[in-house]
Formats: sequence, C-alpha cells, structure tokens
Amino acid sequence: MSYLLEEEKVFKDPVHKYIYVQDQTIWDLINTREFQRLRRIRQLGTCFLTFHGAEHSRFSHSLGVYEVTRKIISQFERNQYEDWPKEERLLCLCAALLHDVGHGPFSHSIEKTFGTHHEEWSCRIVLGDTEVNEVLRRVSPTFPQEVAGVIAKTYRREIVVSLVSSQLDADRMDYLLRDAYFTGVNYGTFDLERILRVMRPYQGHIVVKDSGMHAVEDYLMSRYQMYWQVYFHPVTRSAEVVLNKIFQRARHLYDDGFAFRSLLAPLPALFQRKLTCSEYYLLDEAFMQTTLMQWTLEDDPILSDLCSRFLQRRLFKYVTLEMLDASMLEQLREQLAALGIDPVYYLEVDFPSDQSYDIYRPGEHDEKLPILLLDSNEQLTEISRKSEIVRSISGIQMGKYHLYYPRDLLVKHLPELDPGLRRLFAL
Amino acid sequence: MSYLLEEEKVFKDPVHKYIYVQDQTIWDLINTREFQRLRRIRQLGTCFLTFHGAEHSRFSHSLGVYEVTRKIISQFERNQYEDWPKEERLLCLCAALLHDVGHGPFSHSIEKTFGTHHEEWSCRIVLGDTEVNEVLRRVSPTFPQEVAGVIAKTYRREIVVSLVSSQLDADRMDYLLRDAYFTGVNYGTFDLERILRVMRPYQGHIVVKDSGMHAVEDYLMSRYQMYWQVYFHPVTRSAEVVLNKIFQRARHLYDDGFAFRSLLAPLPALFQRKLTCSEYYLLDEAFMQTTLMQWTLEDDPILSDLCSRFLQRRLFKYVTLEMLDASMLEQLREQLAALGIDPVYYLEVDFPSDQSYDIYRPGEHDEKLPILLLDSNEQLTEISRKSEIVRSISGIQMGKYHLYYPRDLLVKHLPELDPGLRRLFAL
Amino acid sequence: MSYLLEEEKVFKDPVHKYIYVQDQTIWDLINTREFQRLRRIRQLGTCFLTFHGAEHSRFSHSLGVYEVTRKIISQFERNQYEDWPKEERLLCLCAALLHDVGHGPFSHSIEKTFGTHHEEWSCRIVLGDTEVNEVLRRVSPTFPQEVAGVIAKTYRREIVVSLVSSQLDADRMDYLLRDAYFTGVNYGTFDLERILRVMRPYQGHIVVKDSGMHAVEDYLMSRYQMYWQVYFHPVTRSAEVVLNKIFQRARHLYDDGFAFRSLLAPLPALFQRKLTCSEYYLLDEAFMQTTLMQWTLEDDPILSDLCSRFLQRRLFKYVTLEMLDASMLEQLREQLAALGIDPVYYLEVDFPSDQSYDIYRPGEHDEKLPILLLDSNEQLTEISRKSEIVRSISGIQMGKYHLYYPRDLLVKHLPELDPGLRRLFAL
Amino acid sequence: MSYLLEEEKVFKDPVHKYIYVQDQTIWDLINTREFQRLRRIRQLGTCFLTFHGAEHSRFSHSLGVYEVTRKIISQFERNQYEDWPKEERLLCLCAALLHDVGHGPFSHSIEKTFGTHHEEWSCRIVLGDTEVNEVLRRVSPTFPQEVAGVIAKTYRREIVVSLVSSQLDADRMDYLLRDAYFTGVNYGTFDLERILRVMRPYQGHIVVKDSGMHAVEDYLMSRYQMYWQVYFHPVTRSAEVVLNKIFQRARHLYDDGFAFRSLLAPLPALFQRKLTCSEYYLLDEAFMQTTLMQWTLEDDPILSDLCSRFLQRRLFKYVTLEMLDASMLEQLREQLAALGIDPVYYLEVDFPSDQSYDIYRPGEHDEKLPILLLDSNEQLTEISRKSEIVRSISGIQMGKYHLYYPRDLLVKHLPELDPGLRRLFAL
Repeated sequence: MSYLLEEEKVFKDPVHKYIYVQDQTIWDLINTREFQRLRRIRQLGTCFLTFHGAEHSRFSHSLGVYEVTRKIISQFERNQYEDWPKEERLLCLCAALLHDVGHGPFSHSIEKTFGTHHEEWSCRIVLGDTEVNEVLRRVSPTFPQEVAGVIAKTYRREIVVSLVSSQLDADRMDYLLRDAYFTGVNYGTFDLERILRVMRPYQGHIVVKDSGMHAVEDYLMSRYQMYWQVYFHPVTRSAEVVLNKIFQRARHLYDDGFAFRSLLAPLPALFQRKLTCSEYYLLDEAFMQTTLMQWTLEDDPILSDLCSRFLQRRLFKYVTLEMLDASMLEQLREQLAALGIDPVYYLEVDFPSDQSYDIYRPGEHDEKLPILLLDSNEQLTEISRKSEIVRSISGIQMGKYHLYYPRDLLVKHLPELDPGLRRLFAL
Repeated sequence: MSYLLEEEKVFKDPVHKYIYVQDQTIWDLINTREFQRLRRIRQLGTCFLTFHGAEHSRFSHSLGVYEVTRKIISQFERNQYEDWPKEERLLCLCAALLHDVGHGPFSHSIEKTFGTHHEEWSCRIVLGDTEVNEVLRRVSPTFPQEVAGVIAKTYRREIVVSLVSSQLDADRMDYLLRDAYFTGVNYGTFDLERILRVMRPYQGHIVVKDSGMHAVEDYLMSRYQMYWQVYFHPVTRSAEVVLNKIFQRARHLYDDGFAFRSLLAPLPALFQRKLTCSEYYLLDEAFMQTTLMQWTLEDDPILSDLCSRFLQRRLFKYVTLEMLDASMLEQLREQLAALGIDPVYYLEVDFPSDQSYDIYRPGEHDEKLPILLLDSNEQLTEISRKSEIVRSISGIQMGKYHLYYPRDLLVKHLPELDPGLRRLFAL
Repeated sequence: MSYLLEEEKVFKDPVHKYIYVQDQTIWDLINTREFQRLRRIRQLGTCFLTFHGAEHSRFSHSLGVYEVTRKIISQFERNQYEDWPKEERLLCLCAALLHDVGHGPFSHSIEKTFGTHHEEWSCRIVLGDTEVNEVLRRVSPTFPQEVAGVIAKTYRREIVVSLVSSQLDADRMDYLLRDAYFTGVNYGTFDLERILRVMRPYQGHIVVKDSGMHAVEDYLMSRYQMYWQVYFHPVTRSAEVVLNKIFQRARHLYDDGFAFRSLLAPLPALFQRKLTCSEYYLLDEAFMQTTLMQWTLEDDPILSDLCSRFLQRRLFKYVTLEMLDASMLEQLREQLAALGIDPVYYLEVDFPSDQSYDIYRPGEHDEKLPILLLDSNEQLTEISRKSEIVRSISGIQMGKYHLYYPRDLLVKHLPELDPGLRRLFAL
Repeated sequence: MSYLLEEEKVFKDPVHKYIYVQDQTIWDLINTREFQRLRRIRQLGTCFLTFHGAEHSRFSHSLGVYEVTRKIISQFERNQYEDWPKEERLLCLCAALLHDVGHGPFSHSIEKTFGTHHEEWSCRIVLGDTEVNEVLRRVSPTFPQEVAGVIAKTYRREIVVSLVSSQLDADRMDYLLRDAYFTGVNYGTFDLERILRVMRPYQGHIVVKDSGMHAVEDYLMSRYQMYWQVYFHPVTRSAEVVLNKIFQRARHLYDDGFAFRSLLAPLPALFQRKLTCSEYYLLDEAFMQTTLMQWTLEDDPILSDLCSRFLQRRLFKYVTLEMLDASMLEQLREQLAALGIDPVYYLEVDFPSDQSYDIYRPGEHDEKLPILLLDSNEQLTEISRKSEIVRSISGIQMGKYHLYYPRDLLVKHLPELDPGLRRLFAL
C-alpha cells in the first residue's frame, strides 16, 4: 500500500534548489537509520584532499538521484507518453533513493582489500532485517525484492533499470552536477533540464530525440572532463594508494596475529569477512577515520606512519612514466628495500585506466546500456555512430603510468641514493 | 624570516574560485597536522541535519578567511594607501588562517558542557609545542606571540585585529558566502568585490567610504537573514539541544562513576577538563561521532536513546510559545516525570537570543568594532546613525520561545496524557 | 474557445532557464506584431548608460512575468487550493503577458513630455484594431475587455488583479531578478521558488504563510537595493534629465514652427498628441534613437547639442545638495544665462523621491495591494506590523537633491565664472 | 605619452564582475563617439530572434575583450615572465578594445551585399579623422598605425597579434562566456581563470603549459557547442536569410532606379559603396531597424513583405536535406515562380559550413594561429597531436543542407501545389 503525503515536503538542495517528496514511503525511507547513515559517508572518498570543497555526503547524492528520477518520471507523466509504464513510478523512486545505501566508507579501498561490494550490500540492506526493509514491505510483501532487482539490474523491465543505471542515468546526472558544484570546478555542468526534455520512453527503452544529440555530447564531455580533472587527479589517487596500503598492512598484521592496541568492533568482523547488517551499520567514515587516528598510535611503524600520512595529508609524490619497465621496477624495489623502506607499502604504480570507471565505451561495458537516438522516422541509432565527438572519447587511451613514492623518506637518504634513482625522482 | 614561494600555489575553491598562496609560511602552516585536522570538523556543527549540503569543514572556511584577508591587503597595497602598515601583511594573513585552528567538534555544545573555549585553544595551539608554532617561530621568535595577540584581540594595532575580527571582517565575509553556497540558500550572497573596493585603512581603523553604505546594508541584511533562516533554524537548534543533553548526561554519568563500555582517550581528560594540546588534536568530529555511535550501545537508556536520536535524526519536536510561564513549565516537568520521562534530558526551552551570535548591535558587543563610514569631508560616522535599515536590525527583538520535547515518546503515552498537555503539543 | 498546444513550446531564458508555453492563445499572442515590437524597447530605458549589460528588452521581461504567473498558478493547481478560481487561469496568463505591451521607448521621458501613459496604451492595444485583439477575441468576445480590466486593475476579482499588480506580484518578481541578472549586480536576487511556495490564495486575496516572512523581507530588501543602487543611480538619472530636455526642446521648437530637416512620421502625431494605434506601433526605441541621431544634424544648437550628449554619453555632471535654496538656484540660473547657457535646458534639480517608484509604503499607494501574512490561526496581518525591517523601509526618507549641470561647458568659461559657482561645482 | 588615471575606474559587468580601467588612454577611447556607437550594435546580430536574451551589444563585448587582455597581461607581469615584452602593454589593450570598432549593424548580411568589411573599417576608424584617432595620437604619432597593424594582423610581433587574434585569444574567450551568459545556455562556460593561469609567453608566442590541455579541450568544446547550438541555430540562420534577401532586393531596386519613399542618409552612399567615416558613424542598428520599418511602407511588395517578416519574426521555415539535388532545386524554383512567388527572394539553401566561422582547424585557417602546448622539456606541440578530442572537432563535417521557404505563402496555395512539393514541405 502506498499513499501520498498530506503536504509535500522539501529539502533545500544547492544543486537542484529543492528536492520534493510527495510519497509517504520515500519520506519514511529517508528517515531510516540506514539511510541517515549515508550522512556519515563522503560521496567522493579521498577527493576532499585535493578539492577541499568535496566534503559532501552520499546522503545528498542519494536525494539528488531520487530528485532527478522524479523529474524524469513527472515529465513522462505530464506528456502522457504511452510507452511509460505508470505503475512503476514508486519502484523507480525507491530504487533511485536506495541504490547507494550499501556504500561504506572509502568504498574503493575497502572493497579492494576486503572483498565487500557496495551494490551487494545495498541489496542486503533492502532485503535484510532493517528499517529500510520494514518500510518497503509496507508497500507490498514482494516490494523489497523488486527494489533489490532494480539495484542488481535483474529486474525484468529494462526501462526501470535504465533510469537508475545506464550510460545516461539519474545517478550520473546527479553526481556530475553535484561533484562539480562542491569541488567548484565547472567542467561538470551541463543543461539538465534540456537533457530531461529530450528523453523519451520508447518500446521498453529510454531513448533521446536526435535533436538532443549535442546536449548529450555536452553531458558526455562533462563526464570525460570530470574523470580526468577530478576523479583521476594524481593527488586523489595518491591518497587512495596510501589508504590501500593502510588496509593491506592492517589485514596483514591481523592475519599475522599482531596485538592491536585498539581494534574497535566491527573491525574483527570486517577482517574476517563476516560482517552482519547491523555491524555494517557501524562502519561509517567517522568510524574509519577514528580508527586511522587510533592506528597512528600502534606499535607497527609502517601502519602508524601510513595513517599519519593520510590524516596529515603527507601523501606520496609521483613521477609520470610513459611506459613501464618491469626490470627497472624490480631494481627500484630492491634499492628501497636496501634503504630499509618496504617497497610493498611504499611504492605503487597507478594507471588510471585499470580502474573500473565507466567512461562511455559502447560494447565494452556490457552492463551499461548505450545511449540511443530516436529520429523523426522512429529509427534508433547508437549515439557514437552519429557523433564524432562521442567516438573520440569512446575508445580513449587512458592516462599515463604514475609511480607513487614517499619523497620525504628518500630525501632523508639523499647521500645513499643511487644516481639513477635520484634522476628518476629529480632529487 | 619570511619569503615568497618560487611559484604561486592555488587551491580550487567553490566560493572564491581560487585561493592563492604566495608565502612559504602560509604554505607550511596549511600543511601542519593541526591545520589539516580542521578538515575533520564541520563548519556549521549540527546544521547539516537541516540543510544537507552544509557538510563543509572549518578547513575550507579558514582558507577562505585567509583569501579574503589577502584580497583586502592586496587592494590596500595596489592603491598605496598611506594609512596601511605594510609590515603587518604576514601577521594578518597568519592570524586570518589560524583564528579558528582551536575549534573542536560541535563547539557550542562541547564548550557549554566542558568549559573549553575555541579562541583560547587557538592561542594554545599557536603558542604550544605544535607544528604550527614551529612554522611561526621560523618567521621570528616573537611571531607566535603576535599571532596569538591578534587572535585574542590584544594586539596593539587595532587595524590588524579588525581585519580578522570586527563587524565587517574577513571571517564573516567568508562564512556568510560559504554557508550560503553550501546550504544552497541565497540569502547570504552579497557583493564581496564591491565591499572590498569601498574599504579603506584610515587613521588606524578600517573604514568604509560612505558611497558604499548600501553595499554594507546589503551585507548586514545577509547576516540577518542567515541567522534567522539558517543558523537559528529550529531543526538545527533541536539537534543542538539533543547534543547538549548527551554531553550533560555523559558528564553526569562519568561524575557518578558509571562504567562506560567504551570511553576512548581523550574523553576522560575532556571530562576532567585537563586536555593537553596533543590530546586536543585527537578530538575531532569523526572521533565524536564514533563516540556517539559507541554510546548507543551503553547500558544507560537515556544516553543510549539520545545518541540514537542524534545519529538517526529522530530529534525533538517543538512548539512555539509567545511567552514563558514558569509555573506551566514546572507542571509540565512533573507530568513528564510521572510518565517516566526525565524532564532534565527530555525538555528544553530555547530562546535564540540568548545565544552569543553577533547580530550587529553597536555599543553592546564591546569586543566587536563598529562599522564607520568615511565621507568626503573626512568625517567618520557610525553606520547605524545614517541607515534606518541598519538601525532596524541593530536593536532587533530576538525570536520566540521554542519548547523542545520528544513527540514520539508522548505519542506512546497518549491515553495517559493530561488534556492540557495534549492541547499544547497538538496530540 | 481556448485549447492546449499539441506539444509544449519553450523559450530559453537566462533568468528562469526555460519559459514554458502550453496554450495556443499564449503562443499566438507572442507572435503578434504588437508583442514582437517589445523586442525593440529596452526594459530599463537609459540605465544601459550606467550598467552596460542592461540592454534587455521588454519582450524578455514580459515573457518572464508570464512565466512567474504560470508557476504561481501551477503551484495553486497542484496543491488544489480551494480558494483559487481555476477558471481564471488563461485570463491571468494573458494579462501577465500583455501588461506592458503599451510601453513605448524611454517611457518615463516621453510620458512626461507628451502625456502618453503606457498602461492606457496597453489597454488600447488590447481593445483596438490589432493582432493582439484578434487573438484574444478568439477566446471569447468579451475576453479582450476582461484582459484590459485586469491591466487597468478594475477587474472584479481582486485575486486576479493582484497576481499581476500588487506589492508582491509576478511583474516585480521578474523585473528584480531580470534587472539584477543583466546589470550584473546581485542585490536583486531572492529565492523565487521559496516565495512561490509560501503564497496562498485565501478568501479572494493572495496571502503569504507567516513562516515565509523572512523570505518576503529578503524580497523587499532586494527591491530597496535595486532602487537605490540601480534605478536611482545618478548617471542613469542624468541621462534621463538630458532626454527630458531633448523632448522638451523639440516640442518647444515644433510648437514654435521650427523647420526640422527631419521629422519622420509619426513624430508630428506624437507632438500633436493624437497618435493612433498603428502610428504607436512605429514608435519603438530604434526609431527614437534614429530620431536623436538625425536631430544632431538640426540647426538648433540646443537640440543638436543635447542629442549628441545623449548618444555619445557626454551627460550632465551633478553635485549633491543637502537642501534646496530657491534663491541660490535663481542666482545660478541668472549666471548661466549670462554665460549664454540656457538654464531651462542646462540645469535641473533631481530628487529621486518625487518619482513614482513604488518602494513599499502601506497606506500611501492605494492602488498597490499590501502583503498579508496568514498565521496558523487563519489570522491575516499586514507584514509591516510584524517586521521591523519592512517598517524601516516603508517610511524611508528619499535620497538627496542632485543638481545636474554641463561641467564641460562651465570649464570653457572658467575665467568668467563667479567664485561661488566655482566653489559649488568644485571647478 | 601615456599615463595612469589618478583613481582606477570600474564598470560593473555581468561576465567578469568588474572591468578595471587604469590608463587615461583607455578611459578616453571608451568615451569617444565611435566607441559609444557600439552600444547601438548588437553583438549577435539576428540571434536575439532565437534566444531572446541575446540583446547585448558590441560595446560590452569590446570592454570584455579589453578586460581579458588586461588580465592576461597582468598575470604575465605578476609572474615576471621574461619572454613578455612589457613595452607592448598599452598597444595590446588598445587593440583589444578597438578590434571591433568597425562593426556595423547586422555585419554578416551587410558585408555580404555591400562588400564592406568590419576589420577594414576598424582600421579606417583608427587611422581616419575620428575621436579615436585623436586619442591614440596623444600616445605617439605612430601609435594609431601600430594599433591598426595589430588589428590587421600585420604588426611585426606575433605575440601581440595573437593575444587579440588567434585560436585562443581574448576575443573568443570573452564572446563565448558573454554569449553563453546572455542567451542563457551553459555550453559556453569554461574556466577562464584556469586558462589564464596556464598561458605563457614563450619565444614570441603565447603557448599553454601541457598540464592545461584538458582545460583547453574544455574551452574548444565550448566553442563547438556554441557554434552548433547557438550561432548556427536554424531560426537565427532563417532571420539571416531574410535579411540578406532584404538587402539584395533593396540594392536591386536602387540600381533599377526605384523611387523609395524613404531613403535616409547614408543609405545612398552605402548603396554606391562610397561611405565616409562620418557617414559610417550614422549607420547603427537603430538606424537599420528604422529603415526596415520604413521599408514596410514601400510600394515594392517583395521589399515590404520581407521587412515585415523580419520585424514581426514571421521568418522562413526550413526542411533538412541530406544532400543537394541541383535539378530538384531548379524544378522547385520554377514551381514557385509559377505560383507568383519569386524564388530569388523566397528560396534559399543554407549550408552552415560555408560560413567563415572558425571552428578549430589547424592548417586550414592560415590567419589563425594554432594552440601550442609547452611540456616540461620545453618542447612545443600543436594541441591536436596530443588530444583526440581536439582532433575530433578539427576536421568536423559541417551541418546539413537547410532549405528555407515561406511556409505561410505555400499554405495559401495548397490546392495548386505539386504533390512532390507538398511531400517535401510536409504540407
């Protein structure tokens, strides 16, 4: 059973001006403890160390995705498009709001080291013994299952899935605008209202009127710019590297039986990869930062040093390499080891393209639906067939190799340093 | 000794577009652990529970205050105003950057319960055994003392103090613009460049050309609007009330010898009011939120309930009262107690005006310098003598009484409730 | 008969992002020659000589007023407020769109000299033999009369009139935002969406929920700032003075039988005050500027000089006077005359307050409906009774006396100038 | 001789916030009649008929180009780049301010029909008997010649020319931002401050640090979007077509000895292609619009009809053609002629790429200097060699064929129309 609120509620939002809530179910979901928890998880992980404004949370992003979805649907309804399945409205809105509810702190690093996966957790929260599940069940007993289906992209109706997850979905539209707003860069701005106006439900897909091609190009270029200028920024990547090393070291110590001074619940469960839903709830970014702070006081010099680096933003520096020479790297590791610097934790090669970021590549990302243009003859064409610009960013060559290293440590060993190494790091 | 960076550094900032760093000292200060700690303290305390965008930190605000100060000084220098003491440039910039370095998490609540004071802590950090102090001493042995003097408003030159702390200072100019940007409200916007252009150093004061009176009115109205629409928002105040009650309860339990399951360092030192500088460093907002989360698991039902309320945003509701009737309040307390609801922790009257927020009131706030207009005859006049608008907000009557109470608890006791109480709370 | 467009049309608009047209009647009205003529009339008259961005036309403002009205009504409809007379929708929209259709070029000056009145002309265009009238008659034979009634504020339903013309109407909301955008000042910005959300139809009035009082204060302060910083700017006023003098001189010459080299139609009709609707159509700002340009070539030195001044922005300078001394003014006139400078055309005292600009003054402007606050007890209160800020700008004292004079001419007569005059003009 | 103003002057500007004038020469140039005339010429010609906000003048754009140039130079000076020839400052600023001073109304159409050329006129105004020339000569006798040299791109120092005229010049940076602001589209926004920060004078060129490549890509994409979404908009092009036809018809009539009712000076001189500088001064957009208005009253039905179309925005409609079939076109012309519709004036094929708009094409536009990236090894590389995106828009295929025709006329002849023609125009 679902019903409308007596009076529309609003949230003041810097990106969409206001976010409008009309359904009791949406209002109740926002007020669950699991959704409120998103306030304590930053949207952009380590990016605030590069762009200090990027301190916004997944809470505001999730509201934003909901709002963009609401706008798309209300446009479909206002224009009475026949191909739009009206009965799916609430399902779309709930899935939009909840698609990120499973995100943990510093997701990329944690997921890498401990094998958690935020989409899986979103589904667990939707289906498990949670306040979110309780609210959803009030709509109908099968409703949580349907919401989880949309999040997991297994729901039978593609059109519902694609609103939340495709190459032109509410998720991306919100995060590009939001991340641009909070970082203060203006690469991410595109004309949202224009995009919404050219979207159409059509035979089970969301398509775009071909007169809107340039608007979509503009949106895709915003994504391109945001990836290369913000998300892949070397300083952000450096913080990510340090964080990875921290978790790697902590896990190694734990597996080794190291006696931590402080290992607050639910860290042991995380290390043993057997978190429950209610333990996961505790694992927010405040908790993780507090843990890093506590670990600066641990006896293991590597763990303690890495945590201080992260908290005080004494990150690794980098050099750019055109190509990667395995033997050179091996040599480098040996030299570091000889200086007493463990290369496992103090050296990393990063190559942005090996990240699973999803710059538009038709065919490659099978799970991401392509953008289809609808012309006046009702023909559908995949956009990169018509736009040279989209083609130019579809097969794009990914960045360069960045070699991250602790410059401050090397500086201390200046006299002992091998000349090749000094040249490499311009010391 | 102070010197310029070889190459100017910039921070991308959403409010000022870019923040420019030209001095080695400023760069070094930003990279101290004490300054980096400000990243972990929100600028607006509990306000993010009302305006979800308000998640920005004191780190970005501090950079902003520095930048506004830099712009003012560079305007003074470009125009070669004789009354500007050029030799004070670096001192102003350092004081601007560091004036909030002593802020802790949820300052208002913590200061209220534990008697700490952020300005005092700023001075302790400037003067104590800290990285900040070390950087400042490199300029000259007495430089830390001078910076502390400006922050404490005891420095001998009023003009230096007033840049950082007056009715028209860099601090306010930045926070109004910044808080408006991040909350998304546009009441706080005023024409910063215009204000900067009409500011003049004059006989030891910072004054404003009288042709800029309307611009200053606009700035003061922005302040007025931000206070009443953002800072005093009843939901924010409710979160503040809950937080106060939490600390009050925790302190009471501690004093009572309650056996906390978790009482991480430096909480005992905080409770005993004997924090050291390095303990204070640990006390960031991540730590405090983690503590609140841990306390939800404590055995004391009041502490645990209040913490859950805060973290899940199940705050107190409020009714507005035109005036306060002490006997009615007493009765109310008794009725709550009879229902098993402790009125000490579950009832609060809030009256915004008793907060020490500093709406412009000439004469009253002796520590805040008034705004002086300079006319073409070189006469100085305090602005409220010329502007009816400024007068209208100078003696302004402060808000209404808000009575905060836990509606959800009362709803559970509906049948037992006294009719007067039901009427009062519209139950 | 009225009907909806098959497909919604939009105009890209810098202020409201998009302007949405859903009715055939609105679309047809926009495409009439009389409405298109508004493209050739600047919204802010001589203001572009002070703020060079202020080159926007009455065309865009009229679309904006329409759009704000559309938004208000659509909010009323969405919330299904009972006190809103749904059947008046199209009438409101048409009146909003057309309320300025009778504006001529440089309205203030022309109206002053030739006794035309733009509101009267709006009604003549709505009722006369025009394309506008033809479109309106298609709705119903009496529809033009109703639209004219709303514009003339004689329509029987106050609520309809007040949407277009009151202290809080669509007209002002658009022009404040629009003029702020195009001049580039940000005093005029207020939160339009917020204002719209607190407006209610109530017992035949448009009222404001009292929780929106601060938002209305903010809007009224924007008006105050725009008047004093933009509309009353002394340079704009100076251009206005020169323009007045031009028309005064031309009329004097015409009445005197002066042989103009160029006197394009419909100037003679204008001078004789007997313009027809189709002559009025020709009288746009392009025409008037071309006339001024032609008049620079006339034999009358005063007319020719004044026109050159306007076109080349060699305006009169001004001195500010605290009070006005009639005998001093008389003396001044005599001295100018003695120098061969005709004081009728080369001297003017301007006192902004004697303009009929409508800063909020309850009681005084009988034709402008006051702003009423609706509280939770369904009581209505006029806003200045609750807001000290509104009171402070209600009875505000108007500017100072500005004495405009041709400084460049006086400079040429420097040796002959009386010392008092030199002192007055700081020569 | 050149000197600084005693006090810096500012213009409020919506795009750059403020425009700063520090030199007496710049101030004097702005106040010349020739520069003030630019207030009466719209920056975007017929574009306001599509985007109603696009009513801004060449006056504001010229100030903007000046301001961008000033900012670039002041950055060069602040960083004390050795490759910057400091003595060229004033020359750059004057050329930037004056480069468009020769623009006439609706430049593209007028130039096409009457063979005038705005750059040539800019030089004539700089060198002729004008107030501009007088101001420039005060700097030095050869200064006007130097300014004209920069405008004509013949000045000996490439670095000076390229600031005002290259693929990355102050002209484009201002017009993209300004046109985006006034139309209200946000495709044209890019990060000006960022671009300025990566520009360097280097061995006689202006180059870009290669770390700024993505910022330049963003700027070039803005240009691409503005061209396709704004400048080449079919409605704007249609107005351009109608205007071309008007001038073509008028010239034909004039050459034929037609007796115009109204042919104000300097139209005859324009028709005879022998305008003097002082006649050119009269030829502003107000004059041209008044002429069009007068011509609606002429006896020639074609001229009168076309002028009404333009003024009332009853433009030609268009159909899009994939390719152009000459024989089909010939047939079409014959059919129109048979209906009494002169195909010379009522049919036009437009193919955007044949316009001399300057989408970035290295090699092709010899007069437009390419953008060079400077890497850390001091190597210069033309940007399209490094950026796939830039390559994708360098060789871009230009639009489609648009066939413009008067739909309203054809509708009147519906029964007589050939079926092929009805199909083509979907009648």
